Amino acid sequence: TIRFNPSEHPHRRHNPLTGDWVLVSPHRNKRPWQGMEEESSWVEALSHDPNCYLCSGNTRINGVRNANYTDAYVFDNDFPALHEIGPEASSDDPLFSFHTETGTARVLCFSPDHSKTLPLLSDAEIQSVISQWQAETQALGQRYAWVQLFENKGAMMGCSNPHPHGQIWAQSSLPTIAQKEDNCQRRYHATHHSPLLMDYVERELASEERVVVTGEHWVVVVPYWAAWPFETLLLPRRAIQRITELTAAESQDLGRVLRAITTRYDNLFRCSFPYSMGWHGAPFNGDDPTPWVLHAHFFPPLLRSANVRKFMVGYEMMAEAQRDLTPEQAAERLRAQSTRHFKLRVT
Amino acid sequence: TIRFNPSEHPHRRHNPLTGDWVLVSPHRNKRPWQGMEEESSWVEALSHDPNCYLCSGNTRINGVRNANYTDAYVFDNDFPALHEIGPEASSDDPLFSFHTETGTARVLCFSPDHSKTLPLLSDAEIQSVISQWQAETQALGQRYAWVQLFENKGAMMGCSNPHPHGQIWAQSSLPTIAQKEDNCQRRYHATHHSPLLMDYVERELASEERVVVTGEHWVVVVPYWAAWPFETLLLPRRAIQRITELTAAESQDLGRVLRAITTRYDNLFRCSFPYSMGWHGAPFNGDDPTPWVLHAHFFPPLLRSANVRKFMVGYEMMAEAQRDLTPEQAAERLRAQSTRHFKLRVT
Ligand SMILES: O=P(O)(O)O[C@H]1O[C@H](CO)[C@@H](O)[C@H](O)[C@H]1O
Ligand SMILES: O=P(O)(O)O[C@H]1O[C@H](CO)[C@@H](O)[C@H](O)[C@H]1O
Repeated sequence: TIRFNPSEHPHRRHNPLTGDWVLVSPHRNKRPWQGMEEESSWVEALSHDPNCYLCSGNTRINGVRNANYTDAYVFDNDFPALHEIGPEASSDDPLFSFHTETGTARVLCFSPDHSKTLPLLSDAEIQSVISQWQAETQALGQRYAWVQLFENKGAMMGCSNPHPHGQIWAQSSLPTIAQKEDNCQRRYHATHHSPLLMDYVERELASEERVVVTGEHWVVVVPYWAAWPFETLLLPRRAIQRITELTAAESQDLGRVLRAITTRYDNLFRCSFPYSMGWHGAPFNGDDPTPWVLHAHFFPPLLRSANVRKFMVGYEMMAEAQRDLTPEQAAERLRAQSTRHFKLRVT
Repeated sequence: TIRFNPSEHPHRRHNPLTGDWVLVSPHRNKRPWQGMEEESSWVEALSHDPNCYLCSGNTRINGVRNANYTDAYVFDNDFPALHEIGPEASSDDPLFSFHTETGTARVLCFSPDHSKTLPLLSDAEIQSVISQWQAETQALGQRYAWVQLFENKGAMMGCSNPHPHGQIWAQSSLPTIAQKEDNCQRRYHATHHSPLLMDYVERELASEERVVVTGEHWVVVVPYWAAWPFETLLLPRRAIQRITELTAAESQDLGRVLRAITTRYDNLFRCSFPYSMGWHGAPFNGDDPTPWVLHAHFFPPLLRSANVRKFMVGYEMMAEAQRDLTPEQAAERLRAQSTRHFKLRVT
């Protein structure tokens, strides 16, 4: 009889953070690709683009003028998906259940430099981004149960402006995925008396198989249950619950680790690697935050090259996420990349 | 005080089939779009393309030659995500849980005509597709717990060959989304003693607000909880549990209703409307099928035009699906379309 080999035999893995499963079909990476090719070459950008509505001192679509900012810069989204006030209404009809939702949406320009994505920022510039993440979480956490920090990078990921920036959406309720992670972490903690992600990071560090970056205070792994081909999970080594709790040393190290993972991403296919990334920390709804561990997800769409992505469609939309290479193979390829950005290399 | 208006005020709606929520931000449709534009113009295709590996009598990538087929045609996927046999292994480690999975993947060419998408097929041709859906479900349901019929339409939806075709993946376990729908329908049935989707279709027919197509035996609605801008749900008027159970009249009517919805889709933005569609019916795992109602989901990505899509990224990947127009507005726009395909119109 043949022995199970995860790099050869189809299997399903369980995501303990959400309860979902993923179908792993490693042999399938061999099939030829005849579908759509994306445009995602490296575009040399200006440091200041007079037509960019996010650049320092420029005027936005709605006529408001940006400050002449020099560090990371935050302002209210001109077209927010959530409003701070509104009428209250709800129904618990089992088939037509709804409730009104309040919240806010803000934009975070990483730096005044239109050309500098995360891996190209200096230490001080990354620290400025981290400080803004903290300040926004601190302020919005006083009024909302959930503060979602995220970045959509690249046109392929629906980013409508190339000026490196993230977004912050805050709202009264826990959104679907936050609620799932909350349930799963609470259930695990009730049974095992330690935070799920602390037990997890310890075992990943021991095995090393899926580890991509190790900092003094932070670790990046391709999680055992990754759905996207080069998905990663950024975890602290101690049980930090929210981004507001970092020591100065943890913040410095986070900057270096963020640069390391985004540099490896860019180097993998020699492009400005598209992704959605976002932070999950303990909610501000009054519940005990002990089961929670702060973490960031990176969900990048590319599969084979700068131009060939994974489509989460059809089977994936109707049945289950599916991947074509194992998380261990993905981790190995990311580890093999230089930590020096290919655009900064001396030639 | 202002009264709640679903077309103006942000709110969350609950999906009773999956338990997930969706954030509805109707006012947000007004924001200007500066992001990526897709290529999705109408391509006049040949009836037979000598270079297409799905056309009748042509040779596929692996050297196998297709039959000279004249009706809908099914064959094994040359690069299946699942294998019929393989070693067995599993672990219930709470952090590294997995199990091997067996299954099969097949391809269904809708007709020999390379240019005929669903809305362009004749009555007899659509019946041939429905018969194959039934035959495959019948056969695979004997060996597997779940049979997933689906179609990825358009390059934007990861479809790697323009020859109109669907896929059939069958497997031993219930995949994540099937399991969720199973749980939700079972729970509802235990409480209300009638199938969730029967109660739902009745109320949609009474309100008419979200109804797009009504046939004698089938109804298409934009579900109350739709996540994609023009998402629809195709439902029977009686409690059919599986696609194998249709009467001849139900099958005929299904053909007409499928043509009606896909024609309205194409007419909406005058393009070959991309989507993923798929069928969900009662699993073949031995459980009581009574709580289940057979249904098809259409998940189309377009939002504003043939070239501007909705991106389910960032907030949506980290927190919750979000939509920019209400399901009621989407239903109204689809209803306003002619049922005559714009390419077949006498000019
Ligand atoms: O099987 P295809 O058409 O080559 O591939 C397409 O459909 C599959 C099933 O939905 C997906 O897993 C792939 O990502 C997609 O590109
Ligand atoms: O807010 P943006 O960048 O205009 O829009 C982008 O990010 C949002 C939040 O993830 C998504 O809802 C949009 O679909 C996407 O295009």
